[in-house]
Amino acid sequence: MTALLDTPTAAALPADLERALRALLGERFTTAAAARQAHGQNETHFETLLPDAVAYARTTEEVVAIVNLCREHKTPIVPFGAGTSVEGNITPVRGGISLDLSDMTRILSVNAEDFDCTVEAGVRREQLNEHLRDKGLFFPIDPGANATIGGMAATRASGTNAVRYGTMREAVLSLRVVTPDGKDIRTSRRARKSAAGYDLTRLMIGSEGTLGIITEVTLRLHGIPEVISSAVCSFETLDGAVDTVVQAIQLGIPLARVEILDDVQMRAVNRWSKLDYPEQTTLFFEFHGSETHVADQVAMTAELAAANGGGAFKWSNLPEERNRLWKARHEAYYAAVGLRPGCVGWPTDVCVPIGRLAECIAQTKRDLETASIPAPILGHVGDGNFHVVFVIDPNKPEEEAEARALNARMVERALAMDGTCTGEHGIGLGKQDWLERELGEAVDLMRTIKRAMDPHDLFNPGKVFSL
Amino acid sequence: MTALLDTPTAAALPADLERALRALLGERFTTAAAARQAHGQNETHFETLLPDAVAYARTTEEVVAIVNLCREHKTPIVPFGAGTSVEGNITPVRGGISLDLSDMTRILSVNAEDFDCTVEAGVRREQLNEHLRDKGLFFPIDPGANATIGGMAATRASGTNAVRYGTMREAVLSLRVVTPDGKDIRTSRRARKSAAGYDLTRLMIGSEGTLGIITEVTLRLHGIPEVISSAVCSFETLDGAVDTVVQAIQLGIPLARVEILDDVQMRAVNRWSKLDYPEQTTLFFEFHGSETHVADQVAMTAELAAANGGGAFKWSNLPEERNRLWKARHEAYYAAVGLRPGCVGWPTDVCVPIGRLAECIAQTKRDLETASIPAPILGHVGDGNFHVVFVIDPNKPEEEAEARALNARMVERALAMDGTCTGEHGIGLGKQDWLERELGEAVDLMRTIKRAMDPHDLFNPGKVFSL
Repeated sequence: MTALLDTPTAAALPADLERALRALLGERFTTAAAARQAHGQNETHFETLLPDAVAYARTTEEVVAIVNLCREHKTPIVPFGAGTSVEGNITPVRGGISLDLSDMTRILSVNAEDFDCTVEAGVRREQLNEHLRDKGLFFPIDPGANATIGGMAATRASGTNAVRYGTMREAVLSLRVVTPDGKDIRTSRRARKSAAGYDLTRLMIGSEGTLGIITEVTLRLHGIPEVISSAVCSFETLDGAVDTVVQAIQLGIPLARVEILDDVQMRAVNRWSKLDYPEQTTLFFEFHGSETHVADQVAMTAELAAANGGGAFKWSNLPEERNRLWKARHEAYYAAVGLRPGCVGWPTDVCVPIGRLAECIAQTKRDLETASIPAPILGHVGDGNFHVVFVIDPNKPEEEAEARALNARMVERALAMDGTCTGEHGIGLGKQDWLERELGEAVDLMRTIKRAMDPHDLFNPGKVFSL
Repeated sequence: MTALLDTPTAAALPADLERALRALLGERFTTAAAARQAHGQNETHFETLLPDAVAYARTTEEVVAIVNLCREHKTPIVPFGAGTSVEGNITPVRGGISLDLSDMTRILSVNAEDFDCTVEAGVRREQLNEHLRDKGLFFPIDPGANATIGGMAATRASGTNAVRYGTMREAVLSLRVVTPDGKDIRTSRRARKSAAGYDLTRLMIGSEGTLGIITEVTLRLHGIPEVISSAVCSFETLDGAVDTVVQAIQLGIPLARVEILDDVQMRAVNRWSKLDYPEQTTLFFEFHGSETHVADQVAMTAELAAANGGGAFKWSNLPEERNRLWKARHEAYYAAVGLRPGCVGWPTDVCVPIGRLAECIAQTKRDLETASIPAPILGHVGDGNFHVVFVIDPNKPEEEAEARALNARMVERALAMDGTCTGEHGIGLGKQDWLERELGEAVDLMRTIKRAMDPHDLFNPGKVFSL
């Protein structure tokens, strides 16, 4: 899986382009093996493919200059944030420049009275929340990884809080974007709503760097809730856990987070995070609101859990308890991979209408029980979205084949239920065939837009669909 | 303003096309003067321009056939729903076919457990809510007019409930669309969230029929709240009213609706709806939730109103009271126009970040006080969005000029505050220059998309921007 690791030099880059980029960026342009390696690898099962060079931009103006130079030389550009995407989204399949925006870390403005802020693309979500805390505000979108805001916009990230606060689609008010023809545009003003022209903001969100390079993001913020409670509850059956969530959503309980972890995932979490939860299907909850409103939510949810075969409903208002819980949840991927030292993870996700969720998870679970590889289930069940992590030995092609077949059946199942092949990971390299199956001729319309905006196919080529 | 009313025949339509459309649609294709008139006029100040013919489609397959025939003959198509848009959005500026979808009124499915439904484009929002009522569900987006769901999606409508439930951008899960090349696509599956490819759903929403003809819409629904309270409160000053709303939003009170009506508008409402409200700046509220939660919201809001110079805070849980209030609000436009018999309304809207709203409304009010024409202010203040209706005599060009100047200053003011030239009416014919001022080169990107998707410029040509 690391076949190209030994490619030593940037053979493909035109000398003129290299000279111009060095003149523009100085030491922030490099063809060093370590930098190329860091920008060609990924945290999951995709083959490492190296960029010819790495360019670190610090301003939108530099991004414009890089885009113009690369266009002149027909050289691909792959935007890079934290490198935490999981569908091969930042793999430079055609070489070229990996354009690293992680130095663009300025928080440009916080408008507390408007509940919004504008940040550079390289700001990470933890940095932002650190900055916002003493203003009583927070940015809720939390995909687990400490991703960059630009990367989260590019992949339409969501995560644990989406059930209450939405995804990046809802969180972004406006973007500053450099287009393939080198234009520096803002997609929208800062007003909360607008009917002014095509929704370029949403077109860019989830386009995975294929239509534009996001350099600044204006985000909606929320007030830190008066009370935050967390809770954990184990269930005798997987159905009981899923039904609890579906019923809570249908009753309108405004759950802030609700995560499912199956018995395999709980075993992994206990081992990795040195915890002692029962190794059964478990729900992790978070509730936000006023004291009475949160108490109401907790009581109603506890009642539903009990009616569905839940064990003790352990809830707490203590930040230590809460942090312990969510740290364990955020490390679930590493915990899963940690089940088999030397192995790699192949995370996948689907999302279905909430009424089909219990059925979809139950069928998937039965399928996974026949597998020879560990494959824990976890997910954001309040959205109808769940994940499986296949933990495979990279030296055993039969395991990759098995994961591929399990994944295919899981996606087919979700599509048959009017669901989607990816709730939040994006298409990248891994889900391209499924995108065609899911949306058919609509993908041709995406191609029309891509060809019109990026006629030389230079922005993250080979991603989302083949041209 | 009705210069073309007397154009009697469909001179511009190729005979072959006319024959083919008659063969396809029978009596549902017409060149009769009355039908053309009904599809060429508008409720506001835009000139009536007639289509060459009107085609009434009943199925997506018919829409595909019409689109293919019109493309062969390079004949424009303007989709038409209820004709309630206010920026000249459905005016057939280049003639052609007005494609009326108002016969497509089937509610195709309601998935109560998933809180969604799929309807044909011609379903009107009141029909839908009637249908949903006994399932305990409702569709919250309410622009006042009993618009079609397809038209609401095409113009990215919002209205009184948007402060709590969002706009059509948030309400639509998926669309069935016929593209200019005659493809019948679905933009998304029914899952609540997805990261699968470009967001074609959002690209179509607000594109005003220039990129595709929406034939079916899948919508998010909400449970009918346990308790609905309405309230009305008059204020000594306009600032006091706006500050009350801004503070309520900042405190996180989940207002379901909050509307401002200034003294001029209240006078118009009293006269039109035979009511006796104080003729002062007034807020209309609605609160949704459990009994205790609504009581909390009412108490907190009443306290804020009192602190900002509000008079008696008259609230009620009675549906009669509520219906009386919102009927008066929904008729506000007609009430405004009714201030001057024989005159027409020129409604306009802007939206600014909430922290600038008080300033923006106050400056606008001062400007309007110098005007020679009545110009009431009303709006969805919780979103930072407000409207002015200029009531002008169509026979006095100086009044149109005055309205144009007042409108220009209002939009300039909103743009200077990082706001938008339209919060919810769309661009249509009326706001095209302002779109350029607002978004600059981003409009070129919209043109690139339009040209790629509709190379012959046949779908609602001349709208949103000039090519």
